[in-house]
Amino acid sequence: MKVIKNGTVITMDEKREKKYETLDIVIEEDTIKEVLPNYQGPSDEIIDAKGKIVMPGLINSHTHLGMSIFRATNDNLNLDDWLTKKIWPIEDNLTVDDVYYSTLLSCIEMIKTGTTMSNDMYFHCDGSIKALKETKVRSLFSNCLMDSDGNGEKRIETFRKLYEENKNHPLISFSVAPHAFYTCSKDYLKRCSDLALELNLPFHIHFCENIEEVEKIKKMYQKDPVEALEEVGLLRNKLILAHATFISDDGLRKLKGKEVSFVHNPISNLNLGCGIADISKYRDYVNVCLGTDGQGSGNNMNLFYHMSITDLLQKGKQKNPTIFSSYEVLKMATIHGAKALGVDHLVGSIEKGKKADLIILDRNQIETYPTVDLITNVVHNTLPSNVDTTIINGEVLMKDRKLLLSVKEEELKQKIERIIERLMK
Amino acid sequence: MKVIKNGTVITMDEKREKKYETLDIVIEEDTIKEVLPNYQGPSDEIIDAKGKIVMPGLINSHTHLGMSIFRATNDNLNLDDWLTKKIWPIEDNLTVDDVYYSTLLSCIEMIKTGTTMSNDMYFHCDGSIKALKETKVRSLFSNCLMDSDGNGEKRIETFRKLYEENKNHPLISFSVAPHAFYTCSKDYLKRCSDLALELNLPFHIHFCENIEEVEKIKKMYQKDPVEALEEVGLLRNKLILAHATFISDDGLRKLKGKEVSFVHNPISNLNLGCGIADISKYRDYVNVCLGTDGQGSGNNMNLFYHMSITDLLQKGKQKNPTIFSSYEVLKMATIHGAKALGVDHLVGSIEKGKKADLIILDRNQIETYPTVDLITNVVHNTLPSNVDTTIINGEVLMKDRKLLLSVKEEELKQKIERIIERLMK
Repeated sequence: MKVIKNGTVITMDEKREKKYETLDIVIEEDTIKEVLPNYQGPSDEIIDAKGKIVMPGLINSHTHLGMSIFRATNDNLNLDDWLTKKIWPIEDNLTVDDVYYSTLLSCIEMIKTGTTMSNDMYFHCDGSIKALKETKVRSLFSNCLMDSDGNGEKRIETFRKLYEENKNHPLISFSVAPHAFYTCSKDYLKRCSDLALELNLPFHIHFCENIEEVEKIKKMYQKDPVEALEEVGLLRNKLILAHATFISDDGLRKLKGKEVSFVHNPISNLNLGCGIADISKYRDYVNVCLGTDGQGSGNNMNLFYHMSITDLLQKGKQKNPTIFSSYEVLKMATIHGAKALGVDHLVGSIEKGKKADLIILDRNQIETYPTVDLITNVVHNTLPSNVDTTIINGEVLMKDRKLLLSVKEEELKQKIERIIERLMK
Repeated sequence: MKVIKNGTVITMDEKREKKYETLDIVIEEDTIKEVLPNYQGPSDEIIDAKGKIVMPGLINSHTHLGMSIFRATNDNLNLDDWLTKKIWPIEDNLTVDDVYYSTLLSCIEMIKTGTTMSNDMYFHCDGSIKALKETKVRSLFSNCLMDSDGNGEKRIETFRKLYEENKNHPLISFSVAPHAFYTCSKDYLKRCSDLALELNLPFHIHFCENIEEVEKIKKMYQKDPVEALEEVGLLRNKLILAHATFISDDGLRKLKGKEVSFVHNPISNLNLGCGIADISKYRDYVNVCLGTDGQGSGNNMNLFYHMSITDLLQKGKQKNPTIFSSYEVLKMATIHGAKALGVDHLVGSIEKGKKADLIILDRNQIETYPTVDLITNVVHNTLPSNVDTTIINGEVLMKDRKLLLSVKEEELKQKIERIIERLMK
């Protein structure tokens, strides 16, 4: 029994009246047993959080964990040039081992920046799933499915094998994740949709990332992209639509009441010149959560940076500072993410009975001082160096910014260095 | 004689062919004596920068250093509500001492986030100038001038006194800084313009921050805001226009060839719902540099965060990833800032003969690893914790992230805490 004592707790529990208050959190094994002021019962371990902030671990709802080696490499490049000249030639030479180390780096980046769950889609998944297990980061997971190169069936076989081998892992759950409408045939998307229904899994796909993609789907299906979703049968699924940068008003109305989440990826969308999604409008129709995309276009996986920009972009785009708020964006990165990933009964808030996925912030560094408006300052002025402790499934994975994992940071950096040297040749 | 050895140096010197290379920097007193590979001459002190990045200190071209106590307090509030309900009632009760401590905090924030020069405009300036001298941060400086409350003359007297007492200080230079067109009469602006010409100083003013201000100026002067600048005589001055969020095409053409700089304040402009300035267009007409504004609306003074967003916003707004680049934004925060502030012969780049204002980055933390594209990763993935060393005017003010100043961080935080308690009553 662990007790986190005297922290200022942002529970993200909508049933609570206060947005934050001083509370103790009692953890038994992987589960939150109590959330209450001034706990006096038994404990094996006390974590003193006085003067610190305790909050749910952040949830990154759209990632490509194997892409850390491409961090911030798409400056001043069109999406096409970046992919065809920089990324794809390198990806062709990636091995399972490369993806293992690259994912390991991403997982450590998540732990060190306060993220406790990801929603991943990549390839060479034996590598990434090994890294996820080793670092004990919670994840919704799938290999990336597509059939435009004729290997659609093989990828579904790979998926089924991954799923069967790992479906009972306490930290890994599965989605079915075809890449996009422009890399998957209609029949293949239907098969994926059926597979997700058969296994009762969410369906994760890139959707309407930029205007060019919207036009492509319109041309292929001769209808609005949301109507194309319907034609394929996807409105039967629990849908996770990554990006959804451009969704029509008619489309939004059609999605209302369905099990649909949009994953906003603000940095990647800016970096690639896609634009700014109108999430201030979207949230009236669907569940909106937050993702970083791969580090190539997303720069990093630090969700505090992505949260800050999310809030600012809405206020600036709409020329209205009251259209969005820090608390709203905090929901996107916690409980809304959990809802999107189908795990809001387990994580996304600090509540009795949920899994203990939480982080402790020490925000006493002078460069973010003082804190007058706590929620605003947490969202906009929390640096990775403020993330003091990260706990996933009741296990302390980082304390005082030191990793409590078998993986060694310096060794990993050297491995990554060598992978890059080899691939850049 | 100090030598910074073996660093990867981003000089920002346009005469050099390479954007970065391994160089040694020889510093004598306050001045850079040599920038060359493999220096073998004498030295009293060697700073080993192997594996680190050396670059010019960043220049923050629009600040209100006395506002650190208002950090991140304007979430979800209209500009009017924020000012009239939160800021102004508190500002009425500020003392010279409050501004001293609040500026001290801002100066330390700058040193710890890699900024070596600010361009400040606030009030109770005896307090702020004391803090600037104590922390040895370089600054262009003025008290904020306005006559809408009948105290215009008194403020000019205060300015003249400040100027006479401090004009020979090695780190402090002066601008004449009326607040804005809507708080200064035409005659008063003319007097300020003449004063700036008389003393050969830059003229710093808030200008066209939001659409409402543009409309106000149009109504007052019955002409386009840039024509209003001309009518007042300001196109004779070396102009620093803070924000300039909305400038017409006709206005831009009129400004071409004049000594005009626009200070882009991206975070503040988003936060207050002003919008996104079209600096991709502006830069063809005027010098464009970067500011944070006060921390109330700017969240913080970490120029790396502001640089990252500046680059992203242009790419996203124009839906064109090749319209801006990381290197372009680095120029805004270094040499373009120096040009705006009239000190590009002294600082803004690492060049023989310039003052030694520079910073050393240790970017080996795993959460920003690896660095493939150096300039992009420096701009988008440098955290305050990566700023290892800050040197201003040849003096090392921070080393290994430890301040080498008499001011004590913990004591200062307690002072600030007490000021906030008193003011919030």
